[in-house]
Amino acid sequence: MPNTTGLGVLRQEDAHLPARLALSAQAVDGVATSTEQFEKWFADRSAAQVHEVTPIPFDRMRNWSFAPDTGNLVHDSGRFFSVVGLRVEVDQGPVREWSQPIIVQQEIGLLGIAVREIDGVLHLLMQAKTEPGNPNGVQLSPTVQATKSNYTGVHRGRTVPYIEHFRNVRPHRVVADVLQSEHGAWFYRKRNRNMVIEVGPEVEADGDFCWMTLGQVQEQLRIDHRVNMDARTVLSCLPGPGVGSGVHTSTELLHWITTNQATRDVTTTVVGLSGLPGWERSERSISHERGLFFHVGAVDVRANSREVSGWTQPLIEPHGIGVAALLVKRFDGVLHALLRARIEPGYVDVIELAPTVQGTPENHAHLPGLVQDQLRDIERYRDEGRVLFDAEMSEEGGRFYHSRSRYMIIEVGENYPDQEPEGFRWTTLPQITWLLQHQHYLNVQARSLIACLRACTG
Amino acid sequence: MPNTTGLGVLRQEDAHLPARLALSAQAVDGVATSTEQFEKWFADRSAAQVHEVTPIPFDRMRNWSFAPDTGNLVHDSGRFFSVVGLRVEVDQGPVREWSQPIIVQQEIGLLGIAVREIDGVLHLLMQAKTEPGNPNGVQLSPTVQATKSNYTGVHRGRTVPYIEHFRNVRPHRVVADVLQSEHGAWFYRKRNRNMVIEVGPEVEADGDFCWMTLGQVQEQLRIDHRVNMDARTVLSCLPGPGVGSGVHTSTELLHWITTNQATRDVTTTVVGLSGLPGWERSERSISHERGLFFHVGAVDVRANSREVSGWTQPLIEPHGIGVAALLVKRFDGVLHALLRARIEPGYVDVIELAPTVQGTPENHAHLPGLVQDQLRDIERYRDEGRVLFDAEMSEEGGRFYHSRSRYMIIEVGENYPDQEPEGFRWTTLPQITWLLQHQHYLNVQARSLIACLRACTG
Repeated sequence: MPNTTGLGVLRQEDAHLPARLALSAQAVDGVATSTEQFEKWFADRSAAQVHEVTPIPFDRMRNWSFAPDTGNLVHDSGRFFSVVGLRVEVDQGPVREWSQPIIVQQEIGLLGIAVREIDGVLHLLMQAKTEPGNPNGVQLSPTVQATKSNYTGVHRGRTVPYIEHFRNVRPHRVVADVLQSEHGAWFYRKRNRNMVIEVGPEVEADGDFCWMTLGQVQEQLRIDHRVNMDARTVLSCLPGPGVGSGVHTSTELLHWITTNQATRDVTTTVVGLSGLPGWERSERSISHERGLFFHVGAVDVRANSREVSGWTQPLIEPHGIGVAALLVKRFDGVLHALLRARIEPGYVDVIELAPTVQGTPENHAHLPGLVQDQLRDIERYRDEGRVLFDAEMSEEGGRFYHSRSRYMIIEVGENYPDQEPEGFRWTTLPQITWLLQHQHYLNVQARSLIACLRACTG
Repeated sequence: MPNTTGLGVLRQEDAHLPARLALSAQAVDGVATSTEQFEKWFADRSAAQVHEVTPIPFDRMRNWSFAPDTGNLVHDSGRFFSVVGLRVEVDQGPVREWSQPIIVQQEIGLLGIAVREIDGVLHLLMQAKTEPGNPNGVQLSPTVQATKSNYTGVHRGRTVPYIEHFRNVRPHRVVADVLQSEHGAWFYRKRNRNMVIEVGPEVEADGDFCWMTLGQVQEQLRIDHRVNMDARTVLSCLPGPGVGSGVHTSTELLHWITTNQATRDVTTTVVGLSGLPGWERSERSISHERGLFFHVGAVDVRANSREVSGWTQPLIEPHGIGVAALLVKRFDGVLHALLRARIEPGYVDVIELAPTVQGTPENHAHLPGLVQDQLRDIERYRDEGRVLFDAEMSEEGGRFYHSRSRYMIIEVGENYPDQEPEGFRWTTLPQITWLLQHQHYLNVQARSLIACLRACTG
């Protein structure tokens, strides 16, 4: 039992935690909950939680409207989120300047997973939760997934279950707590708090909640649209053992990251949504003049198991299926992932580390090279190499309507060049775990893939 | 010799570096340069570099003017920096809302120190450099101190010496490379790149440059206005040994930091300088209506040893002498510094960790509690305790005119309460060194004090 009362006793990091997590990862058949029980629970929850989601014209939304001066899409309370315009200039790439709608959400949300030791094995308290934008209904979600508006009552909804365990956690029970970004192409400087805490036997799972081993959750990652984005990002922030060795030292990686932050230029200016160049607003959507990227629409939601029983809201619908692929390769037996320093206009900082390939092929069909070349690479190395992971997953269903991305991890062989292209670095999993203790190093797609990579490497 | 060509060999952090730095810190009498030689060199440079700085009315500045629409003070090129208005709202403290002028400087500057092993001991290449705002002329400065404008020629000046060693450094020669903030009360989201690289015998010191051991530089820190702010912040980012133990674990500290970032609210809005509430513009200054805080003025500079021989520019002149004090205390023999989570409007993030006490007494004389109470604490514990460090130092002389702050480190005894006030944490020096690998954890005043604390603890 760690010292928690006075400050007179010196302490170190919990050295047992990585081994306890590894043990939980090995328990793929479950301990507290058998796989059969889990499947039954998940099917029940899926049947019980029904969202009826109907696209509607903007003027049928309640409490949402276009601000007369800016044309921005805002909530009457001034809270939740708004959709504004953004003008972007970057110093590299085939397109150096553009305008786009983007979501502004000032509030920092809380994404939290409670873990508890049951029969000697750590279990994660996972939630079955549907979101209006999910393509398939219920997904496995963190214990808590809440904005301040959620749990301070602006929503006028029910209390968020388990939230008090996170808000009142005793510091020595914190396993991870870090702010991380979300999609820099769709959100302007949004970030969420990713938190894992350990709780005791006084915390029990009810109704929409289920204790699962890390191994069980990792198995679920392989099922299309099963584990939601919020759960994936929290999983990625779990701690691990020491940094160890790699083809680059940690100092060299930090030097490479700092070089990118300091020398690349992105200028963003928030502007009104009215008259945004290249974008058109109709009664039902704000869309790109060539039909690319995404459109903003509105939906009516009727729910039977949510904090409130029905509401209307804007959602962003991405066009096409995204691809997020990580190439991994062994150097002297140690697995390295090829991360890319990527600019997105909504990042708090200039760059974040992204998967080897990230994009939506359709959006780039009119552009030279880039994503097409990389996708050809992926196809080629997929044929030669070993597909460690391949599943379609959705992004945050509270903001995005039927967003689909194919997440792939491909292990390439010795014939794949060691040499990194400009802007890429081979990075070990322990190095990535070390970076993920701190904010804004890895983007949300890369974090999803890291959660999946851990599921592949045991 | 580390592997630098291929990627096939796995490597770890240079385990010898902390010991090599410790050896250099012990060499207080110098190796390549005796203390006598150093003093002579420094006196020579001080005599040779003369800045004649004359306050002038704004309309006598060349290439600087007030923008007609906003009233902002801008350079004709659109580069360097500008002075704009900022509206601030915070959720805590005696003043919740105010407006102020603030400097915007988008460009990330480079502050770099080159180190070289001479006779088996690491030496730092320090520069004797004067800045127009320095209260005393020449100060010990980093090897390189340059904005992009400096070294890309917007300045139309001479080349920055040694800059190419930093721009073309081979990754395994990087000792530290991290972006850090500057004064959040005076700069809006400014940050500089703090870099330390190791160079070989091909790099020699000439004229304004001198090889000094870390111990020699640390001795100079004790002399009023001797070591400039840029040198202090780079010194603070030097690596150290492992994190070890403390009254809080590293995870607990990160949890505390994240809690502050996620739950405290600061809203800043950049506005025009014209008509800024509470501020008045005359021919010679933009100042607060009650004469508090600082004023913006203009100077004419004539230099004999600078990239250009003369120029005019705005400078900010703080009113009163600032105080930055760190209370330190031993727990089980391990030194801990009492850091404070502090909001300043110019931070990139919400809070940064600051000294125990930071402020300018005059500015807060009209307010209850706060700085006065803390200053009384400092006086009291200074009487009881042990003053480890006490010197007056200046902030960046390229932007601030005769800014003076008294930096103090006071070791308190057992009678000082272990219990931390709300918003404070006891943190060990190795934990702080670990945080300083990453951006924006410690503010610039705390970083100065950490450079000084290392000088005290050997």
